[in-house]
Amino acid sequence: MPEFLHLQTPDDARSLLLLSLPDPQPAAETIDTTQALGRVTALPVEAPHPLPAFNRSAMDGYAVYAVDTFGASESLPAYLKVVGEVSMGAQPGFDIQPGEAALIHTGGMLPASADAVVMLEYTQMVGKGDLHGRSGAGTSPAPTPEIEISRAVAEGENVLRIGEDVRQGQVVIPAGRRIRPAEIGGLMALGMTQVSVVKPPRIGLISSGDEVVRPEQTPRPGQVRDVNSYTLCALVTKSGGEPVLYGIVPDDLETMKQAAQRALSECDLVIITAGSSASARDMTADAIRSLGKPVVLVHGVNIRPGKPTILAVCEGKAVIGLPGNPVSALVIADLFVVPVIEKLLGLPPDRPRPSLLARLTINVPSQAGREDWVAVRLLPPSLSPRERGVGEVPLAEPIFSKSNLIFSLVAADGLVHIPPEANGVSAGEIVEVRLL
Amino acid sequence: MPEFLHLQTPDDARSLLLLSLPDPQPAAETIDTTQALGRVTALPVEAPHPLPAFNRSAMDGYAVYAVDTFGASESLPAYLKVVGEVSMGAQPGFDIQPGEAALIHTGGMLPASADAVVMLEYTQMVGKGDLHGRSGAGTSPAPTPEIEISRAVAEGENVLRIGEDVRQGQVVIPAGRRIRPAEIGGLMALGMTQVSVVKPPRIGLISSGDEVVRPEQTPRPGQVRDVNSYTLCALVTKSGGEPVLYGIVPDDLETMKQAAQRALSECDLVIITAGSSASARDMTADAIRSLGKPVVLVHGVNIRPGKPTILAVCEGKAVIGLPGNPVSALVIADLFVVPVIEKLLGLPPDRPRPSLLARLTINVPSQAGREDWVAVRLLPPSLSPRERGVGEVPLAEPIFSKSNLIFSLVAADGLVHIPPEANGVSAGEIVEVRLL
Repeated sequence: MPEFLHLQTPDDARSLLLLSLPDPQPAAETIDTTQALGRVTALPVEAPHPLPAFNRSAMDGYAVYAVDTFGASESLPAYLKVVGEVSMGAQPGFDIQPGEAALIHTGGMLPASADAVVMLEYTQMVGKGDLHGRSGAGTSPAPTPEIEISRAVAEGENVLRIGEDVRQGQVVIPAGRRIRPAEIGGLMALGMTQVSVVKPPRIGLISSGDEVVRPEQTPRPGQVRDVNSYTLCALVTKSGGEPVLYGIVPDDLETMKQAAQRALSECDLVIITAGSSASARDMTADAIRSLGKPVVLVHGVNIRPGKPTILAVCEGKAVIGLPGNPVSALVIADLFVVPVIEKLLGLPPDRPRPSLLARLTINVPSQAGREDWVAVRLLPPSLSPRERGVGEVPLAEPIFSKSNLIFSLVAADGLVHIPPEANGVSAGEIVEVRLL
Repeated sequence: MPEFLHLQTPDDARSLLLLSLPDPQPAAETIDTTQALGRVTALPVEAPHPLPAFNRSAMDGYAVYAVDTFGASESLPAYLKVVGEVSMGAQPGFDIQPGEAALIHTGGMLPASADAVVMLEYTQMVGKGDLHGRSGAGTSPAPTPEIEISRAVAEGENVLRIGEDVRQGQVVIPAGRRIRPAEIGGLMALGMTQVSVVKPPRIGLISSGDEVVRPEQTPRPGQVRDVNSYTLCALVTKSGGEPVLYGIVPDDLETMKQAAQRALSECDLVIITAGSSASARDMTADAIRSLGKPVVLVHGVNIRPGKPTILAVCEGKAVIGLPGNPVSALVIADLFVVPVIEKLLGLPPDRPRPSLLARLTINVPSQAGREDWVAVRLLPPSLSPRERGVGEVPLAEPIFSKSNLIFSLVAADGLVHIPPEANGVSAGEIVEVRLL
């Protein structure tokens, strides 16, 4: 079968692959919340109790009956007796009556009958009694101090009522959410020191090529060390998958078939990188076609680097054949493998991805109809901050490499996307850089 | 001492802090390259040998003497005898003479005297001899096949010479580089299965507040669970630091001083989050002032959230006092703590940070002179892809929260920066979203 009969656009190829995969059934495991950074929630997290769990002051000030302050102004202040101070972290040991107030701090618990808090800046102490009269044990109090209130408060003002932030039973974190520092804080606020997360999907990685040896070996003349197993391993880990390495398979169809079959039975996604020659790529394609009842969806993508990409679904699992060139393999894995891992994790599709705007330093030609990804190094804007306008962006300097060895990506900060409809991008144009 | 006498701008405050810290002396450790993702190189990585290590074909084709092809064209092809095929991964067991060619695959090692490769598409086989005549053992060969070459190649064409990608001794990865999948691949290509990386700096975290209890405790009325220790712990881990938790310190100056002193002696950076009341914040400031010969650089930043931020340098180490509110603490830590960790790791300053452009859904007022960070949720653009133009961006919907509980950040995708010179941002404007 001839290669590249129908080159697909990268977006179409990716959509076709993702739509051809069954809905994921992610397996869950329960782990300590402190260890959950970067993991993905397996279940919606429901609040076991409301937050705040008590009526809480949002300000430093005085807890009052709001009605006692109605009409108060600077010219006609209201006067209230201060009958105690609410200690932080404790239920107040007293209540207030109409005409009374209690000193309270941000985060303090309101006395049972208080329904508002007057901010400290709108109050003034008059008289010099013992402010702590009622908060301690019942000794005979000194004369009660008074405050003058120069601004009215409405009922509930400066108060967070029970459940105002989070109602009991409310879903505070949906399933399929990547856990960030904020989610860890949210879980801890609710006392949830454990959380149910998706088990990392197992991603099988097979390298091939008669010329490829393990990194710890000293290559003989004609041999090169395996790079793809390790760049892909790192990319899989970064994306939340569990890499499973199947080592280096020689360019022998039967051996490759066996390795692929074993990986398919043990993993949720199989990635095979070909040797560097055209015949090695053909062999990869043949091995993928041999897997059970495979559906080869895409054989050849209109993209550079990475044209000889193979996308298939075998027994409901994605099998992806990557070109052997380390740059092509890593770029294509970022575009096609990562979305599959994210689907397996239960993450919602089409989440916006951060990038960076930069100004291209030189013309980059491109073939119309083909999507190009060009490695660039970012340089500070050529003008000083004072000279440049608001919104000035860094410079993006393309890295051209004859061989596309991995070191062209080591030198790069990111990749610039040249869309298929363009004939290239001109020097000085603003481009979007996808950081590596 | 009154608080906030001189509110600094956030950029000035951060610059002042970073400039006041001594140059980092990061400690190094050697780890397996397979475990190095996200770590930072402690030393420049030099290539122990050149790459490629042999003259390597960049194409599928025929290895030739370039001079034998000079003048070749479709109308006047050159003819060469094919004397063998180079096996992948092996030194060719033969050489070629003038007038001869050898079949070679991408990545194959050139016969010693060959100096160029003609791409397969510019050749055609004529005659039907045994192509493998010379690559096997010396049995009597069948008639040698010939190829017709329809395009000339220059010396070195389609060949990667020894060292053309990487010279021996060349620095391929600088010190202070965060290790990405590409760097792991680069190290493996050179057989460097171990790498010297910076030891994670120790970041001491102290929570305070009489009202704060550990997450596993059931809070009594008036109490809340510690959130800041855990959000900050996650942020520190994500940034490459090693969090050291000192637990929750009550609002008692002596106890807080002791905890801060111990953290300072054991860590490279100390972070103290205050209780929620104004008096608790004052106590944090007093504790920081008590540390050895501290230089309090900044007390109060013109920012919302996070105005009561304290930045100090004590015994050459940064000590940062954060507001107790979990949203303020996390936002400020992202802006001030992360850059300090990055400096301790030896990362270069002012690296561009990816973000995302979005269109604000509603007006967001802001006080001129103050920098605001507003939590937003990202929504898909309101128009279908067909309706919207190229470059249409998601919508950013601000999340307003009365209490700034951590759940307002859990609901958020990112933060929108409203610069101090603005009076706010209007609905429909394009804003930069810093993803959380």
